[in-house]
Amino acid sequence: MMINIAEAAQFLLKNDKFLLLCHISPDGDTVGSATALARALKAKGKQVMIKCGDKLTKDYDFLFSGLDMPEFEPEHIVAVDVADNKLLGTEFNALYGDKVELCIDHHTSNVLYAENVCLEPDSASAAEIVYYVILEMGVEITPIIATCLFTGVSTDTGCFRFVNTTVRTFEIAAKLAEKGADTFKVVQTFFETKTKSYAALERMALADMRFYFSERCAVICITRDMYEKTGSDETETARIANLTRQVEGVLVGVLMKEQKDGSFKISLRTNGDVDASEICGRLGGGGHAGAAACTINAPKQKAMNMVLKEIEAEIDSVRID
Amino acid sequence: MMINIAEAAQFLLKNDKFLLLCHISPDGDTVGSATALARALKAKGKQVMIKCGDKLTKDYDFLFSGLDMPEFEPEHIVAVDVADNKLLGTEFNALYGDKVELCIDHHTSNVLYAENVCLEPDSASAAEIVYYVILEMGVEITPIIATCLFTGVSTDTGCFRFVNTTVRTFEIAAKLAEKGADTFKVVQTFFETKTKSYAALERMALADMRFYFSERCAVICITRDMYEKTGSDETETARIANLTRQVEGVLVGVLMKEQKDGSFKISLRTNGDVDASEICGRLGGGGHAGAAACTINAPKQKAMNMVLKEIEAEIDSVRID
Repeated sequence: MMINIAEAAQFLLKNDKFLLLCHISPDGDTVGSATALARALKAKGKQVMIKCGDKLTKDYDFLFSGLDMPEFEPEHIVAVDVADNKLLGTEFNALYGDKVELCIDHHTSNVLYAENVCLEPDSASAAEIVYYVILEMGVEITPIIATCLFTGVSTDTGCFRFVNTTVRTFEIAAKLAEKGADTFKVVQTFFETKTKSYAALERMALADMRFYFSERCAVICITRDMYEKTGSDETETARIANLTRQVEGVLVGVLMKEQKDGSFKISLRTNGDVDASEICGRLGGGGHAGAAACTINAPKQKAMNMVLKEIEAEIDSVRID
Repeated sequence: MMINIAEAAQFLLKNDKFLLLCHISPDGDTVGSATALARALKAKGKQVMIKCGDKLTKDYDFLFSGLDMPEFEPEHIVAVDVADNKLLGTEFNALYGDKVELCIDHHTSNVLYAENVCLEPDSASAAEIVYYVILEMGVEITPIIATCLFTGVSTDTGCFRFVNTTVRTFEIAAKLAEKGADTFKVVQTFFETKTKSYAALERMALADMRFYFSERCAVICITRDMYEKTGSDETETARIANLTRQVEGVLVGVLMKEQKDGSFKISLRTNGDVDASEICGRLGGGGHAGAAACTINAPKQKAMNMVLKEIEAEIDSVRID
């Protein structure tokens, strides 16, 4: 059942012993939303725990600062920013996948696995929705709650750079800053710091970036030995995919990542003029016009040729300015 | 004389035939503020021109869209975001440096060269002040005025990432978005696009980045032949200086830029724990704790050794976590 913010707040106020679940490959929105909501529930005297199917990196530690959450037997399961119960991870999906009573989310792709879904697809982040839920619960936005929410609001908009950023995003950011959010700490942590291993991987990736089709296509290929040489791993590749598309004139950015089994995971980024989902669809994958992915089980050069062939077919339909 | 926003608005309303001056090495704040103010003055039926001592890159073209400014003999000179009349550039300083009647600025370092100074040092950008001046003038914030102001507001805060970002910055951003600012166009232009020549220079710079003193110091050196190989030039190096300091654990980031005469311009970036101005001061330069500069007239390796020696003396006083 679809419910609104007031109904979500009522559900939270009238119950107790909550388990809040984050999605795997956790990001600032799922963790920021969960930690903010947990703090609001504790302020109302509730017992609450947070679980995530993947380990959180130490970047997120400050969002849990002072948040004491002893174990207990949960009675109500709430998922935040989780569009599909598969994204709870194998273990938590098996345990709780069909028992989620409330899902607070902003993904249009939400598969409606939860009993009650508070979904706002126009919201740039789940944290924007959680902000209104907390207000509706009558909980004071403390500085640390504001910091947790600001983490979701800023990370899911690429620090106010993505096209999903709205007037409301800025208004909420202003309110959270006013309530004492440590906005500087958040942006330094999630946008302005590169781990040494990531910085090394980025250098290697950029040095190896290749251009095709009159420089309208840029390709970065990350091989297993690059992880070994830099101490990095696949969890640090999210930012790499955007580096290709940022170059002026590039219509299609390609990130190829060698998997443990030798296959290549291909991530495409476009400005929307070239349909990434069309290209990946023909290679057995899918996605959106601006971002899509597929996996090719072939050696590096063969995999690259397969991708480039499909890109060439699409890219030539785009007018050159 | 220091004047407030209402007095600045009164000065603008009661006069006509304005020349608005930007600072050299123009940025989004000086150009965004000037174009917004010019549009507001034209809305009040005034004649207005904008001049800058340096040529503007094509990035700024959209801020001038539909802004018709035929030449005339100016009667009142206004400087926006110009802290020192030297920053008008040699030609305009000679012509107008001692004739500026109004300066709207946010730099604490303003040398008070203008007859009237509307200075708000707590303002993250001159555009924040111009926003209030335009409101005070009773001019409607049109979508294009909002876009011009948003350019100043976002670029001078590194897109809401610098420590100068305040509650008011977000509030004004929200208001400008509400008034129809094309925030996406602005951030794409100034933050998410790398020219091909810049991208090539960045790749080369990162590939060549060196670490010293247990990786607490990172050095990038840009030589003249790198400009030649990439088609880039010194105007594109502003973003390079930050690449060193972003690496986790780096306390001092150094950018060395070879000048036409063979000397090296040295730009230091620190997180403030190491005093950059102290280091540059000992090499004949100066600046702030977090950002300072000097020039060393010596070959590359000798210049680098001189800088590293001074950094070593400072860096060892900082506790290692």
